Amino acid sequence: MNPSLEYFSNKFDSEKDALLSDFFEYLRFKTISAQSQYKPEIRACIDWLKKRLENMSLETQIWETIGHPCIFAQNLDAGLDKPTVLIYLHYDVQPVDPVDLWDTPPFEPTLVDGNIYARGACDNKGQAFYTLAALKAVFEKEGSYPINLKILIEGEEEVGSGNLQDVVVEKKEEVKADYVLIVDSDIPNEDTPAITVGIRGICTSEITLEGPNTDLHSGLYGGVVYNPLQALCEVLSKFHNADGSVTIPGFYDAIKDLSPEDKKDLYLDFDEDVLKKEVGVEALGGEKDFSPLERMGLRPTFEINGLWGGYIDEGFKTVIPSLAHAKVSMRLVPDQDPLEVYKLFEKHIKSLIPNGFKLTLDNTHSPAPPFRASFDSKIAEAASWAYTEVFSKPCMKYAGGGSLPVTLSLKEASGGEVIAMGVAISSDKIHAPNEHLALSRIKQGYLIISQLIEKLPTL
Amino acid sequence: MNPSLEYFSNKFDSEKDALLSDFFEYLRFKTISAQSQYKPEIRACIDWLKKRLENMSLETQIWETIGHPCIFAQNLDAGLDKPTVLIYLHYDVQPVDPVDLWDTPPFEPTLVDGNIYARGACDNKGQAFYTLAALKAVFEKEGSYPINLKILIEGEEEVGSGNLQDVVVEKKEEVKADYVLIVDSDIPNEDTPAITVGIRGICTSEITLEGPNTDLHSGLYGGVVYNPLQALCEVLSKFHNADGSVTIPGFYDAIKDLSPEDKKDLYLDFDEDVLKKEVGVEALGGEKDFSPLERMGLRPTFEINGLWGGYIDEGFKTVIPSLAHAKVSMRLVPDQDPLEVYKLFEKHIKSLIPNGFKLTLDNTHSPAPPFRASFDSKIAEAASWAYTEVFSKPCMKYAGGGSLPVTLSLKEASGGEVIAMGVAISSDKIHAPNEHLALSRIKQGYLIISQLIEKLPTL
Repeated sequence: MNPSLEYFSNKFDSEKDALLSDFFEYLRFKTISAQSQYKPEIRACIDWLKKRLENMSLETQIWETIGHPCIFAQNLDAGLDKPTVLIYLHYDVQPVDPVDLWDTPPFEPTLVDGNIYARGACDNKGQAFYTLAALKAVFEKEGSYPINLKILIEGEEEVGSGNLQDVVVEKKEEVKADYVLIVDSDIPNEDTPAITVGIRGICTSEITLEGPNTDLHSGLYGGVVYNPLQALCEVLSKFHNADGSVTIPGFYDAIKDLSPEDKKDLYLDFDEDVLKKEVGVEALGGEKDFSPLERMGLRPTFEINGLWGGYIDEGFKTVIPSLAHAKVSMRLVPDQDPLEVYKLFEKHIKSLIPNGFKLTLDNTHSPAPPFRASFDSKIAEAASWAYTEVFSKPCMKYAGGGSLPVTLSLKEASGGEVIAMGVAISSDKIHAPNEHLALSRIKQGYLIISQLIEKLPTL
Repeated sequence: MNPSLEYFSNKFDSEKDALLSDFFEYLRFKTISAQSQYKPEIRACIDWLKKRLENMSLETQIWETIGHPCIFAQNLDAGLDKPTVLIYLHYDVQPVDPVDLWDTPPFEPTLVDGNIYARGACDNKGQAFYTLAALKAVFEKEGSYPINLKILIEGEEEVGSGNLQDVVVEKKEEVKADYVLIVDSDIPNEDTPAITVGIRGICTSEITLEGPNTDLHSGLYGGVVYNPLQALCEVLSKFHNADGSVTIPGFYDAIKDLSPEDKKDLYLDFDEDVLKKEVGVEALGGEKDFSPLERMGLRPTFEINGLWGGYIDEGFKTVIPSLAHAKVSMRLVPDQDPLEVYKLFEKHIKSLIPNGFKLTLDNTHSPAPPFRASFDSKIAEAASWAYTEVFSKPCMKYAGGGSLPVTLSLKEASGGEVIAMGVAISSDKIHAPNEHLALSRIKQGYLIISQLIEKLPTL
């Protein structure tokens, strides 16, 4: 263990209680960006973050948007000879329903068996928290920051970062950086250090199918009125081929293979049985012709994320509803363009709707382009070195399945090289009930960030 | 117009305001049987009915069940030489959601353009109300009832009458009757008098499909986990052939054609364009090889009445849910047996579920057998005569599409001939937002009942 790593490891252990207490405060803010009633909680969280960033000797700015605000913080004293790093985090979290499946209250963080359970414990408050704690620790050790540090924490990642994309164009000067570090990503498993080779993009659609102009009694109209729920099932059942591939014509046309360089050290080991056991199923899905980690990170998907219509409460109601609804999303890989893919989807679904129905599509949940990292930068070198040090194992490359809407905008606006990193693993249940993060991985994240920040200026 | 009809017509007109005020009181009780929070409203409604029936010089009994109570009323003084008629009605109503599609509050009855809008305005409080009002009018005119009258008003028709079927076996003596009159049925349109040739049966299932043991992030698991919403759509899309028929093997095997006698005067005129306009669609559904009124009343169906799973609130959540749900129902015609058909359904759906899913089926919403009326009874003759008098047109036969779960049990327990009648028409929006009944049809119903009751003892 190098002396710096040893120092930060001891520092984390000795300050653990105070760190946890701070972390729990942060987790208690109900910062659900999708639901407008949580605006006051978001404002309170921004105040809390502002104080915390100021306590780290950073100058802060709050960037208002028509949605939820961003908070930006920077030091101004490292010197022009030092690299400038923009770190991207987000304070917003996913909704908590179905809330009855949580074993502990989602906004009352609970430490059980070395794991912290709470909405956001991993995504992204957990990853944000160890990042800020590590930066503070570096400052306390050195008395100053060894880099020009810029931190951008946004509040709309879980709803597509629609406003941030405008903000970073407007604040081009402020976000200018040599490197962008997105700390919101995964490693393949808890024993495998890896930085992210690519992140899938996304486009979404909310589908409304209108049949009759009012709900109807299925006894009186059953047999003569075409039931919108039946039609929706029929339409959505036609989006996958028997081999698991997506039927949308042209869907796969723009996909580019990984470069030979990117394929080097690419982590593709995967035990299907472990996944089956973890999620409790006897059979998996997806494209039969690809391996699981390819399907998860390097192949696009079409998923139904929500489906509803008719009578869904206690008891029974024999209704033929007027409306049937679905929320669907498509994960995208380079070089699929979200808007182009959306057009293909739109054309396809229109061709599938039976006569007599009115289709409405809403794609206002912001699309995000797919991202592929470049590995020949100093920031990639520093991150790879830091992971290797902390895990005592060579750092791999990993293709993440999730989407980070702002990646491409940050790259363009900052002018810097972007890498995505993190210590999340798939069983952390992000976006699901009982989201959690192991305390041991919080420490790993803290150590990786501190090592990276100390290493970067020396390269 | 015969003198008795003229008398009752004048009586209705002169008492209209008091009748409406009474009717509105009845409609204000939120007697939704499917939702347990309305139990106190149901108890209050029972008290109201009890007083009203006692004011009609009837002796009342409340029959408790493990669900909602029934109220029973009878006179005991007509004499053994007079026919005994059991009239079946129900005080419970359907849930009101989606409540935002109502133009007026569902439990604040409103008279607009000659129609009374409220949940239950037609089904069955409206039909029950004119029946009781007509019986009271006959009593007031004659000073006594010309028949032995038994009235049974139940509270679980909209949830399948599961308890009433036991009650009528237990109360066999009380429900013994020469004739059973079910006033909960339809006429083909407002200009066509008709009594009901048959009523479809029903069986239902609540389907739960479990995939992964928890909700998952569609970015991390999309492409490797088989999405339960996709699987449910795929399964439910396989229940209809391209010609609109149901795919369940053996589904149609037990169906018996109408007898030549039943086909006589059977009303089958139907303008598809009127229906299309009424429900606002450009194309209809159902079996292509049958005419609309055959499809509505004489053919069985398979319908999805509710469908839900995943994230269905404001905004977007990229989830692969653990569970996908549907409520489905099958309308049945003679001689399809609900339990036999349910077994065929169960076998079929099990054969369609992909590997890796756990299927749970719940058929606790009571099944009901289909019913076919016999037309050679005095009660059918009296009803037919009454419709003809009130409409000044020959009474037809009509095949109703809805289900009356208790029909067969009432026939068996009472030992009497059963007919189903009423003045509902399909555009009354029963079970839907803006349910209503025209005041003119309330008067027609009142006149038909009074004519029938006066005619029956003379045959």
